[in-house]
Amino acid sequence: MKYAVLGTGIVGRTLADRLDELGHEVVLGTRDPEATRARTGEGEPGAWLAEHTSVGVATFADAAASAEVVIHASNGAAALEVLGAAGAGNLDGKVLVDVANPLDLSHGFPPRLFVKDDDSLAEQIQRAFPGALVVKTLNTMNCSVMARPGQLATETTVFVSGDDADAKATVTEMLRSFGHTDVMDLGDLSTARGPEMYLPLWIRLYGALGHADLNIKVVR
Amino acid sequence: MKYAVLGTGIVGRTLADRLDELGHEVVLGTRDPEATRARTGEGEPGAWLAEHTSVGVATFADAAASAEVVIHASNGAAALEVLGAAGAGNLDGKVLVDVANPLDLSHGFPPRLFVKDDDSLAEQIQRAFPGALVVKTLNTMNCSVMARPGQLATETTVFVSGDDADAKATVTEMLRSFGHTDVMDLGDLSTARGPEMYLPLWIRLYGALGHADLNIKVVR
Repeated sequence: MKYAVLGTGIVGRTLADRLDELGHEVVLGTRDPEATRARTGEGEPGAWLAEHTSVGVATFADAAASAEVVIHASNGAAALEVLGAAGAGNLDGKVLVDVANPLDLSHGFPPRLFVKDDDSLAEQIQRAFPGALVVKTLNTMNCSVMARPGQLATETTVFVSGDDADAKATVTEMLRSFGHTDVMDLGDLSTARGPEMYLPLWIRLYGALGHADLNIKVVR
Repeated sequence: MKYAVLGTGIVGRTLADRLDELGHEVVLGTRDPEATRARTGEGEPGAWLAEHTSVGVATFADAAASAEVVIHASNGAAALEVLGAAGAGNLDGKVLVDVANPLDLSHGFPPRLFVKDDDSLAEQIQRAFPGALVVKTLNTMNCSVMARPGQLATETTVFVSGDDADAKATVTEMLRSFGHTDVMDLGDLSTARGPEMYLPLWIRLYGALGHADLNIKVVR
């Protein structure tokens, strides 16, 4: 499968690395590929790209244009701008996976959510790009756990929300390939409000435990 | 231990029944005890009280006055009014357990939260009754699971948030007596924002599963 991962931060790189390892064609999308390649300091995306030569880098638009599945992995506040740069035409009819959280850090830590209750970031994205097949998933865990859930002691749960059954099936297959054995389909895209509003609990779990190697299992 | 359980709905009755079974003195608090006893229709509190003769019923104020631990088990929107009727003087220096969720049902189902992000119902209660030792817990599950978590297939997690360590220890002991073997102390009372904002996810889990016999386990 051809994947575009929009966002060159730790989330995007971790997912890109995992997809590459699983044999997919992966291109990171970024604003300015030359500038990204030039950021070669420790922990920067240029250094990472130099070490991960099978992962490509392209503009948001070129990455999305060549992909079958597009993953939005930039921060939530940048989502609409990043996807706008990718271009509605390059997203039409494609599975668009949103793994971001609608964090409002303008009031410091812990963050507030800039959308909640009767709307969600996933729905904002869907309204802005009606031709895309938006699926919300993976936002309830750290990127390390997203990509390799098997590192945790026991099975945990990952959620999918979306309006298109085939798109959810495609995403579920990707999640299973990552090692997620308990994929819960919550329903249509409006159910993404639930997993998005879970983030404030995740933040307190992280605070109490002092590490991010955690996830929840729904016992039912 | 002497418990007052404020609220005669299903949550209050379920907790009162469990505490009674465990050998505690339990009084249900209500607005008008005579009116409550007179509600003897099927599923109504008067009928329940007639079958649970060892559980008392009294005004909110009398119930709180005689108790060592007070449990707020009415609905979140009524919390400040119910506790006001109990009387600040009857709550001073006592452990006040809040198990409610700040549900705003004025826009229909699924509900919104009437407080969130940078405040919580638990903190509103603490500010209104500064002499009480408020502990938030149990709001992340159905009352049947609150009282008897052992009914689920595997161990799940319950959270406690509060500013007073001794009060949290008292509540933790109560939770363990109910069968909760994984009690996570999230920290001070502001951490209650996390478990309160989890409710929209719980609602979607309930929707997807079609039943409320569920809870989460934090795998870490």
